[in-house]
Amino acid sequence: MADDAAVQAANAALYLAFETADVDAMERAWDDVEPDCVVCVHPGWPMLRGRGPVLRSWSAVMAGTAYEQFFLTDVQVAVEGDTAVVTCTENVLTSADVAENASAVATNVFRRRADGWRLQVHHASPVLGRLVDG
Amino acid sequence: MADDAAVQAANAALYLAFETADVDAMERAWDDVEPDCVVCVHPGWPMLRGRGPVLRSWSAVMAGTAYEQFFLTDVQVAVEGDTAVVTCTENVLTSADVAENASAVATNVFRRRADGWRLQVHHASPVLGRLVDG
Repeated sequence: MADDAAVQAANAALYLAFETADVDAMERAWDDVEPDCVVCVHPGWPMLRGRGPVLRSWSAVMAGTAYEQFFLTDVQVAVEGDTAVVTCTENVLTSADVAENASAVATNVFRRRADGWRLQVHHASPVLGRLVDG
Repeated sequence: MADDAAVQAANAALYLAFETADVDAMERAWDDVEPDCVVCVHPGWPMLRGRGPVLRSWSAVMAGTAYEQFFLTDVQVAVEGDTAVVTCTENVLTSADVAENASAVATNVFRRRADGWRLQVHHASPVLGRLVDG
């Protein structure tokens, strides 16, 4: 359970970095031991690879985003060895003048490093409609 | 590299099961050691949890899908301990009368079990447009 708590904290730090547009915190959130293995999918985007391109994308996204607050729900943490997989629903409240707030789902893969859990994969995707055929 | 090849084969088996609408092969692809940890996101869908609901969703999707063929590109495999993370782009050719074929990106997490690599997380998302702000 100690692992779970540490992973949950690392996961929360990612969203806090985004909320506060903190570029330094965003850099700390992501793994720098295997920079080529860093992968990020923003909702609706193609896959970005490599720590450099991924961090640049976050800088662009944060610069272009009005204030957003995330309420994470349905958070599940699965730790196996030095890998942790977090799956969750991102409920986003924005300051933009939109009729309804957005929902996305995310898979975040963390690696245990000497200085803690660092993000290797962030895959977020839009929830576009109701569940069909389920 | 032997691990990588085995993981690639497990990953390919997932898409072959879908292409051939093979329910038995789809069941074999997914982990049954920790059924509650199974997670699946179909493109644009909310997150489904649990082996039972996930397999039922695949049966529904396969029953409702005209023939599709997947060409995977940009496949990257990262193995650490008994966990493997595959990220790739799913290029889909369908038999439907559509103007253009679809593209999605996927993150697939496999666990090493006694009988091989089994899928624990499949997260696929639609690529909705061009990269912006990058």
